[in-house]
Amino acid sequence: MTLHAAYDPDNIFAKILRGEMPAVKVYEDEAALAFMDVFPQSEGHTLVVPKGVEARNLLDMPTEKLGAYMQAVQKVAKAVEAALTPDGLVVTQFNGAPAGQTVFHLHFHIIPRWEEVALGRHSSGEMADMEALGALAERIKEKL
Amino acid sequence: MTLHAAYDPDNIFAKILRGEMPAVKVYEDEAALAFMDVFPQSEGHTLVVPKGVEARNLLDMPTEKLGAYMQAVQKVAKAVEAALTPDGLVVTQFNGAPAGQTVFHLHFHIIPRWEEVALGRHSSGEMADMEALGALAERIKEKL
Repeated sequence: MTLHAAYDPDNIFAKILRGEMPAVKVYEDEAALAFMDVFPQSEGHTLVVPKGVEARNLLDMPTEKLGAYMQAVQKVAKAVEAALTPDGLVVTQFNGAPAGQTVFHLHFHIIPRWEEVALGRHSSGEMADMEALGALAERIKEKL
Repeated sequence: MTLHAAYDPDNIFAKILRGEMPAVKVYEDEAALAFMDVFPQSEGHTLVVPKGVEARNLLDMPTEKLGAYMQAVQKVAKAVEAALTPDGLVVTQFNGAPAGQTVFHLHFHIIPRWEEVALGRHSSGEMADMEALGALAERIKEKL
């Protein structure tokens, strides 16, 4: 029943939203915050989380807030594509641990793909170099 | 540059939307049509496509139409979850062939996951039994 558990306000994305944890930010508006994934599956792997909601996943996201949030997801996806010119872009969202979810605040992954470059494993434990993430974030921000 | 190619109105989802190809439909409103994937990666694999747009992918979806479309995605995801009670649900969208896209009309995949059941390969070529898909669609429709 993990899909219907209560929201835990101590999840790390809630802490990032409250400013209690650092993040390499890319974009922020009233509906959403975007930042670099510190365990990237590919160069430019970016996350977009909704603000002002206690939503574990897509199922419990207030419907009336979905549009503004998804517009932010699209805006960031366009900027990632413009900045890094990948061959493709995966946009994905996991609901529940058996689906691959590890942080229980709704988030969409934006994952650039290049021809013949395999994806890394998300939970391989290799944290990205913060300086490199910061440089990527700057390139993406220039395209917003 | 496949991410920025022109929309081809002869893609199979456009044909389904025009009624020129059959589909096992689950839900339809003004913004979207949902139907069962005929090459399911798991039981209940459902697709949601936007109506009335020539959008190859998320990047070229008109921003003002994104909200109503994503509300349909959420509605169908909730119904799939309620009908089939999976342990998790993957919601994913591919932009460009190198990201896994095979039909070039924007679509979100809703893929139920169960603990310890691996995903099938989408393009393994095994088409689902139409009667079984129809029965699944009926169960999902009951929860809409």
